[in-house]
This record gives sequence, structure tokens and C-alpha cells, in this order.
Amino acid sequence: MSNLAAMSLNVKSPKESFTVMNELVLPNDTNTLNNLMGGRLLHWMDIAAAISAQKHCNRIVVTASVDNVSFKQPIKLGDVITIEAKVTRAFNTSVEVRLDVWAENIPSGTRAKSNEAYYTFVAVDQSARTIPVPELKPETPEEIELYEGALRRRQLRLVLAGKMQPNDALELKALFAKN
Amino acid sequence: MSNLAAMSLNVKSPKESFTVMNELVLPNDTNTLNNLMGGRLLHWMDIAAAISAQKHCNRIVVTASVDNVSFKQPIKLGDVITIEAKVTRAFNTSVEVRLDVWAENIPSGTRAKSNEAYYTFVAVDQSARTIPVPELKPETPEEIELYEGALRRRQLRLVLAGKMQPNDALELKALFAKN
Amino acid sequence: MSNLAAMSLNVKSPKESFTVMNELVLPNDTNTLNNLMGGRLLHWMDIAAAISAQKHCNRIVVTASVDNVSFKQPIKLGDVITIEAKVTRAFNTSVEVRLDVWAENIPSGTRAKSNEAYYTFVAVDQSARTIPVPELKPETPEEIELYEGALRRRQLRLVLAGKMQPNDALELKALFAKN
Amino acid sequence: MSNLAAMSLNVKSPKESFTVMNELVLPNDTNTLNNLMGGRLLHWMDIAAAISAQKHCNRIVVTASVDNVSFKQPIKLGDVITIEAKVTRAFNTSVEVRLDVWAENIPSGTRAKSNEAYYTFVAVDQSARTIPVPELKPETPEEIELYEGALRRRQLRLVLAGKMQPNDALELKALFAKN
Amino acid sequence: MSNLAAMSLNVKSPKESFTVMNELVLPNDTNTLNNLMGGRLLHWMDIAAAISAQKHCNRIVVTASVDNVSFKQPIKLGDVITIEAKVTRAFNTSVEVRLDVWAENIPSGTRAKSNEAYYTFVAVDQSARTIPVPELKPETPEEIELYEGALRRRQLRLVLAGKMQPNDALELKALFAKN
Amino acid sequence: MSNLAAMSLNVKSPKESFTVMNELVLPNDTNTLNNLMGGRLLHWMDIAAAISAQKHCNRIVVTASVDNVSFKQPIKLGDVITIEAKVTRAFNTSVEVRLDVWAENIPSGTRAKSNEAYYTFVAVDQSARTIPVPELKPETPEEIELYEGALRRRQLRLVLAGKMQPNDALELKALFAKN
Repeated sequence: MSNLAAMSLNVKSPKESFTVMNELVLPNDTNTLNNLMGGRLLHWMDIAAAISAQKHCNRIVVTASVDNVSFKQPIKLGDVITIEAKVTRAFNTSVEVRLDVWAENIPSGTRAKSNEAYYTFVAVDQSARTIPVPELKPETPEEIELYEGALRRRQLRLVLAGKMQPNDALELKALFAKN
Repeated sequence: MSNLAAMSLNVKSPKESFTVMNELVLPNDTNTLNNLMGGRLLHWMDIAAAISAQKHCNRIVVTASVDNVSFKQPIKLGDVITIEAKVTRAFNTSVEVRLDVWAENIPSGTRAKSNEAYYTFVAVDQSARTIPVPELKPETPEEIELYEGALRRRQLRLVLAGKMQPNDALELKALFAKN
Repeated sequence: MSNLAAMSLNVKSPKESFTVMNELVLPNDTNTLNNLMGGRLLHWMDIAAAISAQKHCNRIVVTASVDNVSFKQPIKLGDVITIEAKVTRAFNTSVEVRLDVWAENIPSGTRAKSNEAYYTFVAVDQSARTIPVPELKPETPEEIELYEGALRRRQLRLVLAGKMQPNDALELKALFAKN
Repeated sequence: MSNLAAMSLNVKSPKESFTVMNELVLPNDTNTLNNLMGGRLLHWMDIAAAISAQKHCNRIVVTASVDNVSFKQPIKLGDVITIEAKVTRAFNTSVEVRLDVWAENIPSGTRAKSNEAYYTFVAVDQSARTIPVPELKPETPEEIELYEGALRRRQLRLVLAGKMQPNDALELKALFAKN
Repeated sequence: MSNLAAMSLNVKSPKESFTVMNELVLPNDTNTLNNLMGGRLLHWMDIAAAISAQKHCNRIVVTASVDNVSFKQPIKLGDVITIEAKVTRAFNTSVEVRLDVWAENIPSGTRAKSNEAYYTFVAVDQSARTIPVPELKPETPEEIELYEGALRRRQLRLVLAGKMQPNDALELKALFAKN
Repeated sequence: MSNLAAMSLNVKSPKESFTVMNELVLPNDTNTLNNLMGGRLLHWMDIAAAISAQKHCNRIVVTASVDNVSFKQPIKLGDVITIEAKVTRAFNTSVEVRLDVWAENIPSGTRAKSNEAYYTFVAVDQSARTIPVPELKPETPEEIELYEGALRRRQLRLVLAGKMQPNDALELKALFAKN
């Protein structure tokens, strides 16, 4: 019975790992056209996602992968970046984190979605060995949809990393094979 | 005839954009386990890839996307990172750049592949409008393979960005539909 | 009537300027005991407060002053800093921003209040001339209390900057003269 | 007798902790109007003050508080900042440091006072426990005035931090209660 | 006669360009043995020397060369670096700056000379064209010695840069040819 | 015989330490004329040279000296810096590294030599004690010339550091004394 109690403690909701980060785009973050460089944004996104993953795991986490990221439009010097991160699904020793990124130009009062992304992290102990993480239980319809899509994104990661045959990626296959 | 000459000037080989970058992993690049943070590496990779894309385009370039990246093993404080970048294919106003990343531990003399990645860049003029780029002509068998794979990776990017229906991604479809 | 409309547009609530910033304490932010240096935190707090002030003013803002800040306990390398900022009162061309700062040690799951602070900012146009800002209308009891205290803190700032005689700081005087 | 000798060694003059720091205002230190951001200056001031406090204490020191700071006028990109710091008074395990800050525009040859400030630091041993510090003996009339004012500023800090009742702050009370 | 007055205004003493810079050695400035990296110190020295040269010239200055620098002993994480800079001689459009660098370990109270160095700078106008600089008039015996040695160091710079034949470097020749 | 084998392992060619580093000139690296500051370049050169020295020594290395460096022409914001480094000669516990630095302006397609330099490094063990390094065997005519010149440059370093009398620097003397 105490085991059951321990297990129920070990189930977390996405909102427990919800993390917001704001950054100001400074000169060194931009190219000679005064646009934010993509790599700088990927760096901030990694920090925001790692904080979110750590909140879920209560462990030090290590970036395992970043999924395909597209940058929709240039972000300018002086803009305020808002990054929202939350865990979408937990696997044995790893979690997937979803990021939503906006850029806000304050004098003009405009705010535009820059991109979405998924980072995955592995939880490790002080000797850097992987270690199990709490389960995630999605609550809202949006959280449930993200939770379910996580399996398909995971297959794509494994296929792209050469660790799974395309033919065995059943969820992915369904996507391309229909009709 | 001068048009032909102009066109032939506008064809470049992958080796003209070949770029090598070495970086030393410093304390601020690492987490509390002294491992390089993934986001810092993505930042360095973006700079190396942007230099490579600029060499091909002779234009300022803007990061358009980064493909799925997996980090194979932890990189330690004090390691030397080597990033090699070269353009694999040019489209109308954009290029795909392939990156190979190694980490070298100098006292122990070990060197390990950390990851491969593809970044894409759009070339822009001084007013930040997109502008055509030179063609790329692959020369070695490896360059030809990368050139041909670029089409499939591009379809995947468009599907993942919601700009193409999976059903229209013919090259991708073939991958999943065989058997 | 259109003036009334314009005026009502020009009144904002504290929640419109609410800003959250998370930062990870990295090696370069710490002293040789691995404690976060106070100046680094004051720097982050200034950026968070400036973003909040900009959201209220829709203008570029310039730091005018920071009130007395006390650091309660050491913050460690690897901790996650959470800074919450919101405007408490608007004056003619300036705003007061309240900051609440927490430090969270993720592996141990502990979170402690680090400090509170007040920064003031002046709104400026592109030629760096001061310019009027929207009014602030507090809504919750806590916001009303912060709004009212802003007058007393302002007197203290003016006295400490030598711009007001202690004797003229009526609100402050009341504080020290009672009984 | 050797105790007396030891004690006399433990008394220092303000000039033994006098510290000068020059910094050049670089692009990343400025906002989009090319003005130095207040938080960056507070960061530099903390480092200069910590060096001064360490010189007095011969110990690692930790920032305990910063008093109200007002920024008089904008400092521009390319200006040279001069920060002068010295200990004004030592308490049991802490010291107060006074800072004077100037900004110099070299091509125009103009130099303007930016602000004054007081930071306090606690001295700690290698286990981060507080530890007694040497006494300070002021020598010049200006040093004596700063030494005496330190008591009043300390009361204000304690009142603002909620650690002293305004009514018990006798030195402060005198300031507001006269006539 | 007003020309004479103008000229006399244009003569400065070394103490007018005297500049002190203190820096704290932080983790990112060190290698994996916690020793300050030489390049980081050369960077700080360049900034201190540039500030000194600017004070003499009242112009933006550009680094033209750095003379041979030897690092005497390792400087540790947490040490305080003190750099003193002053102009030793002015040529037509350039100045030589002498630097003295110390490292201080505060807990142990030890302070050691790290190195001396000479940097030269060219003064430029807003269009980056070289422009004449004020003369320097040395005053103390030490300043006179530095002023006279500047000629010999300049010949060595020209010989090493391939702009002067060793045989024409009369001051240098005397040094090696005696007896 | 095993000794001979061990010795031959301990002889390396210059190409084994060949290192390339590319850096993009960002706003914080430049002065108010948008020119790269000399000190920033000396910092990058130190990192590139240290990586090269470490490759030869398979040890942590510490900067011992940098020879006279002249900067030929201004490098602009947005330029790509290419630094090539290789060991030219090994002494008992130290190596000399030669650096060649170019600046490339990508939109205009121009590339210019910025400067050459020599840095020396001492190899140390984990306790920071000096330790013998592998021999260097030059192979190409250019490598042999660099190898032979290393002796003359070393004498100059020793004379300039006051560790050798000019009269004892036979190789240098020959340079100045001829005819």
C-alpha cells in the first residue's frame, strides 16, 4: 500500500513543469542585419526546456535531442522573447518537452509566434548514470493530444537516428500510407 | 554567351564552402556535472553552418531551420569540439548545410563523433529580402549522396512545418511504403 | 467622447505588465564558493523589470533607480532563479516595478524566497526625451496596497537622492514619528 | 601583550581597501538607444565593491545588500566608466563599501558623476560561515563623516528589511522628527 | 602666438593617461587547472591600454601592435588582477602604452607581479583615418627612461614586422654589437 | 629496442597539431567604429594556439609568452576570422606555435592576411608541474625554416624577458652584426 502511495506521488501533471523564460535580444545575439541568430535562440530554448525537464524529474537532465525547428520570421534587436516549456510525456528515463516561442516588439505592441519545438532530455544521477523519472498524466484535451503525439515523434527520432527501421515505425507509417 | 559565362560562375562545389571550427568547452558551457549543454553546441553549430552558407552564397544568410539532432554521448569540460560544415545542396534562395561534430579529449587522446546535423539558411540582401543563390554541383560520391538526400530531408521539413501534406511527400512516402 | 475613450485605453492593470523570467546559475555567475554573486542577480532583475516596464509603457525605458535590496541567503551554482515583475504605480513619465525573486534547488526540490525589490524606470522616445506613460489601476487588495506604498517609497528615493527635505516627506515622517 | 599586537594589526584604514575599476561600455551593455543598462552597471559596481571588501577582510565576501541607487543621466556606448570603492565602516562580520561612479566620454573630453552607492558584504570562511572582520579606523574628515553616517544607513537597511521597528531606529528618527 | 598656445595645450604628461583596471578571475577565464588563460589577460590588457591611449589622444584608438609578453607564473581562479597603464611616448599619429600587471590572492594576502608589456595604438577620426596626437612630455626619471627606450622598442617592432632592415636599426644594433 | 619504439612514438610532425578556427566578429568584439579590437583577436589566437599545443603534447598547456604581433589593417564587424595554428618546434617542456590569421568579408568576397604570430606554451601535469613533451620533426621546406628560426625567436624572448644577455644571444647577434 505504501508502494501505491509512492507511485501516486510519482505521477505529475504537465503544469508542474510549466516554465516561462523572457529574454531581451541584445546586440551580440544578432547578425549584421540586426536579426536574432537562430543558434542563440536554440541555446535559450535548451535552457528553458532543461529547467522544465528538471522540474518534472527533480534530477539533473542532459539534452538527448532536439526535433526539427523552423524559424518563421526574423526577430529583431530589442525584441522580447517569451519561451514557454512543459513536459508532454515521460518515458523510462527521459522526457519530451514542448516549447512555444514568441517575439514581442514592445514599442509597436506586436507579438508574433516564432516557432514550436520539442527537446528530449535524459535524467541522470550524480555519477551521470540514467535514472527512472516520474510518470506524466496529461489533464486537458491539449495535453492529451501532445501526450499521444509524443509516440509518433519518438519513432521519427529513432528512424532519423538510424535506431529504428522505417518499416517498424508503425505510427509514422500510418501517416504516409493512408489511401 | 555572357549569360552562360555568368551561369558557370554561379556554380560552386561543396569544397568552396567547407568550414572548420574548433572550440574549447569552458565552465559556462557546462551543467553542474561538467557536461557541455546541448544548446551551447547548437549555437556553435549555427555559427559554423552560417559561415559555410555565407561562403557559398556570398550573402548574409538567416537560419531557416535545423533538422532533428541527437546527442550521442556527454562532452566534457576541457574537451575540444571540432565542427565541419559544408553546403550539400542549393535551392532557389536557400541552402542546406551538413555538419559533422567531434569531441576530443586531449590528455587521453580520444576523439568521438558527437553528432551530425543539417541546418538550412535563406540568403538575403541588405534590405533583408530573399535573393537567389549560386547552384551547387556535387563532385565526390559522398557529395552526390548528400545532394540527393537533400530532397527527401526537405520534404520532411515541409511536412513537419505543416507546409506539405504527407501524401504529397513522394520521396518520403516511398521510404515508409516499401514492402 | 473620443478623449474619454483614449483615456480609458491609457489605463492598464498590473497583470498586463506581469513578467516571469527564469535563469540557470552558471559557473561565471558565481564566486569561488559557488554562490551566485549579488551583482549578477541585480543585472537579471534589471532586465526582468525593464521588460515589465516596457509592457506597461509600450516605450523604451531607462533605469532611473533601484531601491534597497537585501539578499537573504546564498544561492548556489545550478539553482534556477525565478523573477516575477509587475508595475505597481505609474507617475507622469515613470513607473515603479516590484520584483519577487526565488531560488529553486531542483534535485532537492527546495525553493526559497531570495528577495523583493523595487526598480523605477523613465519612458523615453527615440530621441531619448521623457514621455508620458499610461496610468495604472490596481485591482486586487495586494495591488492596491503596493500602489499606495509606492508614494512612501518615492519620498524615500527623493530624500536619499537629496531632492527632498526629510521634513517634507510627510508619508515617511508619519512612519517614524508615531507615538 | 601579543593580543594587543594582534588587535592593532586588525585595524585598517579606508585607503587599504581603495579600489579603482575602469570599464568600457560595449554594445551588449546597452539598450537599443545605445545607453548603458542600469543592471549592467550594478553588476560592475558589485564586483568593484567586492574586491574592496575582500582587501579589507582578507576573506571571501558575499553581497548582503545594496542601498538605494539613483542613475543621474544616461551613459553612452563607448564611454569609459570609472568606479572608485572603499570600505567606510566595519561591523562584526560585515563591511559597508562606498562607491563613486563616473562616466567619461573620451572624444569630447567630458566626465560626469553618474552616481554614488553603498553595498554591504558579509565575510565568510571556506565553509561559508560568517567570520569576524578587521576594524576600520577612518582618518580624513571625509572618511570620519562616512564612518558616522554608516550607522544611520544601517538602521535604514534593517527597517527596510523588516528587521527593525522604525521606532527603534533612533538615528533615523532624529532625522525625520526634528522640529 | 595663439598657435604657440594651442601647441602647448597639446603637450601632455604621462600621469594624464594613467589608468587602473581591476578584474576578478572568473571560471570562464580559466583552463581546467583553474589557471587564468593568457589570451584572456591579453584581452583585458588591450582594453586598459586603449583607455589610457584614448585619454592621451582624446580620440578613438586602434591597436597597432603588442610587444613580446612573458607570463611569469600562473594566476588562479578568484585572484584580483590589477592592470596599470600609461602612455610612454607619442609619435605622429600613434602612442606607446606601458602596462604593469599584478595578481593578488586576497585570502592569503599575497600579490605578485605577473608581467609588463607595451601596446601601441593609432589614433583615428570618425572616418577611421589616422590623425595627429598630442606630444608627451615625461617628467619623472622613470618616465624619461621609458620615453627614451620607446625608440629602441619601436625599431624592434619595425624590424620584426619586416618594415626596417636590422642594419638600419641603429639603437638596437648598438645593443648587440658592443664589445 | 622498446625504448627506440617509444622514442619514435614520441616524435610528431607539424601536421599532427594543425588546427583551424573560424570566428564571426560580433558587436561586442568591436569598438565604436565597428572594428575588431586587438585584444579580442589575441584572445582567440591564444585559444587556437593552445588547442594546437595540446594536440602535440597530449597535455594541458599554459601560455608562457606571445611574441610581438602587428595588426595590419582593420577587421570589420561581420567578418569571418580564420586562424591556422601549428607547432613549429618543441623544446624540453615547451612548444612554439605559429599562427596565421586572415579576415574575410563574405558579401564582397575579399580575404586579407591580418597577421602572423608566435605563442609559446609549457606542458603541465595535473599538479601543474612542467613535464617533457614529444619532439617535433619538420617535414616540408617551410616547416624546416620555421623550425630553424625558432631558436632565434627563443633568444629574443629570453633577452626581452631579461633572462639572457644580448651578448650571449649568438643567433640574434649575427643578425645585427653583419658587415
